[in-house]
This record gives sequence, structure tokens and C-alpha cells, in this order.
Amino acid sequence: MPIRSITREFIGKPIRCKAAICKKSGEPLVIEEVELDPPKSWEVRIKILCTSLCHSDVTFWKMDSSAPAAKFPIILGHEAVGVVESVGEHVEEVKEGDLVVPVFLANCGECRDCESRKSNMCSKFGSGAIRDMPRDGTSRFRDMNGKVVHHLLGVSSFSQYTVVDVTHVVKIHHHFPLHMACLLSCGVSTGVGAAWKVADVEKGSTVAIFGLGAVGLAVAVAAKQRGASKIIGVDLNQDKFEIGKQFGVTDFVNPSSCNDKSVSEVIKDMTDGGADYCFECIGLASLMAEAFNSSREGWGKTVIIGVEMHGSPLSVSSYSILKGRTITGSLFGGFKPKTDIPLLANKYLDKELNLDGFVSQEVDFKDINKAFDYLLQGNTIRCIIRMDH
Amino acid sequence: MPIRSITREFIGKPIRCKAAICKKSGEPLVIEEVELDPPKSWEVRIKILCTSLCHSDVTFWKMDSSAPAAKFPIILGHEAVGVVESVGEHVEEVKEGDLVVPVFLANCGECRDCESRKSNMCSKFGSGAIRDMPRDGTSRFRDMNGKVVHHLLGVSSFSQYTVVDVTHVVKIHHHFPLHMACLLSCGVSTGVGAAWKVADVEKGSTVAIFGLGAVGLAVAVAAKQRGASKIIGVDLNQDKFEIGKQFGVTDFVNPSSCNDKSVSEVIKDMTDGGADYCFECIGLASLMAEAFNSSREGWGKTVIIGVEMHGSPLSVSSYSILKGRTITGSLFGGFKPKTDIPLLANKYLDKELNLDGFVSQEVDFKDINKAFDYLLQGNTIRCIIRMDH
Ligand SMILES: NC(=O)c1ccc[n+]([C@@H]2O[C@H](COP(=O)([O-])OP(=O)(O)OC[C@H]3O[C@@H](n4cnc5c(N)ncnc54)[C@H](O)[C@@H]3O)[C@@H](O)[C@H]2O)c1
Ligand SMILES: NC(=O)c1ccc[n+]([C@@H]2O[C@H](COP(=O)([O-])OP(=O)(O)OC[C@H]3O[C@@H](n4cnc5c(N)ncnc54)[C@H](O)[C@@H]3O)[C@@H](O)[C@H]2O)c1
Ligand SMILES: [Zn+2]
Ligand SMILES: [Zn+2]
Ligand SMILES: [Zn+2]
Ligand SMILES: [Zn+2]
Repeated sequence: MPIRSITREFIGKPIRCKAAICKKSGEPLVIEEVELDPPKSWEVRIKILCTSLCHSDVTFWKMDSSAPAAKFPIILGHEAVGVVESVGEHVEEVKEGDLVVPVFLANCGECRDCESRKSNMCSKFGSGAIRDMPRDGTSRFRDMNGKVVHHLLGVSSFSQYTVVDVTHVVKIHHHFPLHMACLLSCGVSTGVGAAWKVADVEKGSTVAIFGLGAVGLAVAVAAKQRGASKIIGVDLNQDKFEIGKQFGVTDFVNPSSCNDKSVSEVIKDMTDGGADYCFECIGLASLMAEAFNSSREGWGKTVIIGVEMHGSPLSVSSYSILKGRTITGSLFGGFKPKTDIPLLANKYLDKELNLDGFVSQEVDFKDINKAFDYLLQGNTIRCIIRMDH
Repeated sequence: MPIRSITREFIGKPIRCKAAICKKSGEPLVIEEVELDPPKSWEVRIKILCTSLCHSDVTFWKMDSSAPAAKFPIILGHEAVGVVESVGEHVEEVKEGDLVVPVFLANCGECRDCESRKSNMCSKFGSGAIRDMPRDGTSRFRDMNGKVVHHLLGVSSFSQYTVVDVTHVVKIHHHFPLHMACLLSCGVSTGVGAAWKVADVEKGSTVAIFGLGAVGLAVAVAAKQRGASKIIGVDLNQDKFEIGKQFGVTDFVNPSSCNDKSVSEVIKDMTDGGADYCFECIGLASLMAEAFNSSREGWGKTVIIGVEMHGSPLSVSSYSILKGRTITGSLFGGFKPKTDIPLLANKYLDKELNLDGFVSQEVDFKDINKAFDYLLQGNTIRCIIRMDH
């Protein structure tokens, strides 16, 4: 059966399938059979075709079991593409066989936020730390002993099949390349949106990007497309400079070789007083402050994208912010999934957005823990996990 | 001699005049004779007509002598209006007899920032903590023993005469009311600019203002003028609610009567999830965070105006900022003194900007310490200090 096809035999019934379960914080995932309920009203059951590992999964994976947001066992994964297997009542937006991208951010299309040009924070379905299904708070997954297995961020793509709310599903063109669709599901859209929508980088401006993972490199691609004159990458991994060049990075700062200067001092020297736009794409409060300090007086804007790994607060000088600096942050790059993912997909097809080079590895689902190793060792951009079916 | 007239007898020579000197942090000012040099190149000597006390003066007055920015003896005061007594070489913008407003923020008109629409942070002459003259770093004031007395913020208006750099002087119409000119010199312009230029408050939006001093009330006036639907004032001083109503405040929160709720929880309840625009006009990091927490997910913008009294950092949740919130800050409300003060003055004359009610007391120069008492006791908006001549 071709990968994009579906079977109709389980419609209305639970599906038994393989999922990579995180049983305890920080432990390797275990691939086991789970039982997945059919979609309820406004829900969609998706056959996942491929998925990839975003750093946010690692942050949840590492989360101490005592953290309020932690819930185990859980099925991680939120960057993916799949085919609709079946839909629940009231779902008209997508149908069986549609190619879809599940997204961690809801987009109901009807609330004050979804209707506003200024926001992508759906106020009807909330965001950020969703566990289990948004409408009734329950899970559709059970293990073979009948014990609940939790969802993550409304997606849970580390499973052959998953159920997501229709507000978390975006339909894309049936022949769109799967790897590219997977990238648009989280990291790449997030980076592009941060540069285009949140910062609104303009021609000739200077940009500093802290962290050259998929998110940071997507910021670079988008800033280059806008005509930024200097794109400084900051990363502890020296290899990222050569890699970064292919994505538009023009200059590089390795914090471990700044001698007695701070990274922000080095960047200020390189940019005649500070970068116009700074992006934190790592998830450490210390680097959020360093990014802020690297931003120019008068109009410097710092965009926080990283999810702080330890929950530490963002802390900056209360005097420095008086000098015309701005700090802002966004989920999913300020983009509205349902309208902006199709736009980005078109820009990719029209060759206005170059997504080449983001996929650095591919592994089979059974080797999913390798994807974690690659990300932890830092020698990956995105590792595609091919689901077997 | 009419107050707006000047004498020509000291041109090119030092002037001996009375100044209120701050000799030690937190001690009452002492009125003494000082000697003031004639203006050097690009400098302007001004006969101060009236001045008022802004909270920033109090912050500098209280500053521990060990703080790097502290320098004693010093002449405080930066909100004022006066007449040009004489000008140094190369000064063409103003001449003897012109009515001028000195401003703490430089505006050279030529640097990248002064030329940019986006910034008011003159990068040629810096800002924020200027002591003594910006071009040569020396003082024009000496006490009767010949010992240097320092300038504050490029203005030092608690003196019958002062010398300021031409970049810190704004000419206004010769018949403009003195009290109104004085208000435009700092606090009121700052509040209006924060609402109009930095936040860009729009019709129908909700606003929360922390601190209803002159700055906070000016934010209210400006937000009302823009058509904000709800303007919530937050102040420990209950009297400020009745006062605030005259400036556009529609609702009031007293932090000491929120029971077991935080101010931000109360404001979220009042605004269906958070205010569109929050302004911190007090100068306490804890209230900056509270203002931020009162701002709406999706597009809430917090504008920091207060100068932190203890130098504490601004600290907020690194997760909350990801939800589309923004924090920004400004000096002088993001306004460029040389272009925006005349615009505001015209708006006042055209009755588009109501500045009534900001002057709550008047004292003679010899009673200047009373102005400090009023501000510290919180029962003032602005106290005008009439200079005797
Ligand atoms: N806001 C959102 O909607 C959103 C979406 C996706 C990802 N994220 C977050 O964005 C961040 C980046 O995600 P990613 O998938 O690109 O991560 P990644 O792990 O692929 O990349 C992180 C990069 O940062 C570098 N790095 C790590 N520590 C560093 C340090 N101390 N100094 C300098 N460089 C350092 C690493 O070498 C690596 O190149 C994560 O925090 C993730 O949770 C946020
Ligand atoms: N950024 C700038 O360019 C700029 C310009 C002028 C003033 N400022 C700063 O703006 C702030 C306000 O100045 P102002 O002259 O209006 O001050 P002010 O003293 O007249 O007013 C402050 C108000 O805050 C209230 N307040 C004090 N502590 C409070 C608390 N804990 N909770 C609630 N309310 C509290 C007081 O009752 C008072 O009404 C100061 O920090 C000042 O330094 C900044
Ligand atoms: Zn992600
Ligand atoms: Zn919505
Ligand atoms: Zn002031
Ligand atoms: Zn300038």
C-alpha cells in the first residue's frame, strides 16, 4: 500500500498501533503497542507518515516528574505530517485521505485572537502546555494494560496513529513533499515567522541569532530573504558556522572564544552599537539576557523563541529597557497555523523560501532514540523519523 | 523687569546666582550662591523661570553616594522653562531672549538615531545618566570656595541660571504659558509619548496604568484622547482615583485592597484576560512584572517608564513572554524633544491636548524642599517652583 493511502477498516473503532512511549523523564522511549480511540466530535485521527524531533520535545522529555506540566507515561512528538484516517462528527475542514500537518498551536478561526491580525494565541483553545484532548481533557491512548498514556501539546506524533483536535490540523496539498511538510509543522515555521511576522526584519538590518538549530537557521533563511545586511550566528558548536553559511549566516560568534568579552560586547563591536534584531533560539534565560544586551539602543528588538529549559525567569536591566529596546516573544513565530502554513508551503513551491538543508538525518521509527542522541550531541539540524506502516 | 526679560550685563562673563544644592544624598537642598561660567561653544545659558520636581530627581537625590552614577554636590532639576540669557559660539538655533524648554534627552538632529523615525536615543550625545557638560565632561558651576558643583542630566534647573548644551534646548513660542511649558519639559511629554508613540494606543483598547503621578496621569489623558474604552489606574494612594477621573481614568485598583488576589489577577478579571496596554509609571521592578502579568496574551504590550528606584532588574516569566506579549521602554515617551515638544505645545494651544490639572501646588524657590515633601507624601501632581530673580 502506498504510504499516503489509508485503510478504512478501523473507522469508528480503536486502532492498535505502535507508539514510542516516554515512561519516565529522561529515559529512552520504549516502542510498544497502544490502543487509540476513534476521533470524537471535532477530532481527527491521523496516520503519521513522518515526524521529527524539535528541541521542545527534549525539554518536555527531560522535565522533572515533579514539575506541574509533567505527566507520564506520555507520547511526545509535535513536528509531523500525516494522512487523515478518519474524522469525528462536525469535522468538515478535512476528510479521510487528506494530507495534513498537525500543529501544537490551536487555531479555531473564531475567537477574538484568531480573528485578530495581531495575535496567534487562540483564546478559545489556549496553548502552550496542553495535555490530552483540549475539549474534554481526556486521552485517546491506552497501553496494553488499559492504562492511560498522555498526549503532548495536542499532537503526539511519535506514534503510527494519533488523534488531534481539528483546530490543530492544517490541510496541505496532497503532493507536497513530506519532509518539507514536516519542517513546516513546527521549527522552520517558527523561525521564519519570528523573522518575518514578529520582528519584521527589513532590508539592510543587522541580525543576531543565538542558537543555530533548525529554529535559528530558519530565522537566518528568512532574514536573508528580507535582505538583512549582516546575520550573526551565536553557537557553542563551531561546526555550525560552516553549516550556517548555507542558510545565510554571514558572521559567527562562539561564546567560548570571546576571551574576556561577553558575547553582547562582541556583537556590539560588530554592529556599531548593537544588532537591530536579536533572536534567542536556545532556551536559556542567560542567553535571552545576552541577546537583549546585544540589541541596539533606540530600536533594538529581541525576540524570545527558546523554551527555557529550567523554567528560569527572563531578567534584564530595568534601565537598559528604557533606552528604546523591546523584548517580545512568540509561539510558532506569531504565525496562524491554518492560514500561514499553506502560504509558506506555496512560497516553498514557488522557490521564494529555500528549505533545503534542514534535513540532516533520517532514521526508522524503531531507531527513534537515535534522533534524541543526535540532537543532544548537537550534530543534527532535523532528523526525520520515518514511520513504518 | 518683566520675568521673561534678560539682562545683557553678564554676557561672556560668569554669573553669580542662587542655586539649590544637593550636598549629600537624601539631605534637604541648600540654597547658596554659585558661580556659573558663560556658555562655551554649542552651549546656551538660560535664566530659569520656573521648574518642577519630577520623580526622577528624587531617585537621583536618594541615590546612595557610593552608586557609580552619584556625584555630589550636584544641582538637581530637569523639568523647567527659561529664557536664553546668552549663547556660545556656533549656536544658531536659539538666541538671547528666546523662550526655551531644557530637556534631559539630547537631540542633535544629525546622528543615525536622530535621523531615524524609530529612535529618540541620540547616539551622538548619549543619554540617561549624563553628568556635567556632554562635550567636554566638565561643569560650569562652582561654589563660593571654587569647588565644582555638578550638573544633572544635562539640565540642572534648580538654579536661577544654568548652562545646557544646545542639543538639550527646545525653543517654544514666546507667549506660551510658562507652567504648561514646564510640564512639557519632562513628565507630561513622557506620559503622552508613551501612550501615543511607544504603545500607539488605539480606539476601544484597554489600558492599565501603574502609578498615577504626573507621568501616569499624562498617559491617561493621552489614552483617553485616543479613545481607549477602559483606563484602569493602579495606585496605593486612594485619593488618586478621584483625581484620576479628571484625567480620564475610568477604573481604579488599590493594591492594598485586592484581598488575596494579585493586582494582575484583578486586572485580568476587569479586562477579559488582560489589558491591551500596560504602563509602569512608578519605578519598581515588582510593579513592572505586575504590569507585564496584567497584559493580555496575544498582543499585550507593557511600556516601562518608571526609573527603578533601587536599580533592581526587570524579571518576568520566560514562558509568559512566549505568548505574544511585548515589553518595551522609553525615555521621554519615545518623543524627539526638538520636533515633538513644539507639536505638543500646538496641540495644547489647539485644545487637542488638555493639560489642565497637572499643576497642584506652587512654591517659591526658597521653599523648594517643600516640593520634595509634597512628592514624598504623595499629595501632589506637579509642584511648580517659581524662581525669583
Ligand atoms: N516558541 C516556539 O514556538 C518554539 C518552537 C520550536 C522550538 N522552540 C524552542 O526553540 C529552541 C531551539 O529549538 P531547536 O529545535 O532549533 O534546537 P536545537 O537543539 O536544534 O538547536 C539549539 C542550538 O543551540 C546551541 N546551543 C545550545 N546551548 C548553547 C549555549 N549555551 N550557547 C550557544 N549556543 C548553544 C546548540 O549547539 C544548537 O546548535 C528550543 O528552546 C525550542 O524549545 C520554540
Ligand atoms: N522614562 C522617562 O523618560 C521618565 C520621565 C519622567 C519620569 N520617569 C519616571 O516615571 C515614574 C513616575 O514619575 P512621576 O513624576 O509621575 O512620579 P510620582 O511620584 O508623581 O507618582 C508616582 C505614583 O505612584 C504611586 N505609587 C508609589 N508606589 C506605589 C506602589 N508600590 N504601588 C502603587 N502605586 C505606587 C504614588 O502614590 C504616586 O501616585 C518615576 O519612576 C520617574 O522616575 C521616567
Ligand atoms: Zn517544536
Ligand atoms: Zn481561536
Ligand atoms: Zn523627569
Ligand atoms: Zn543625535
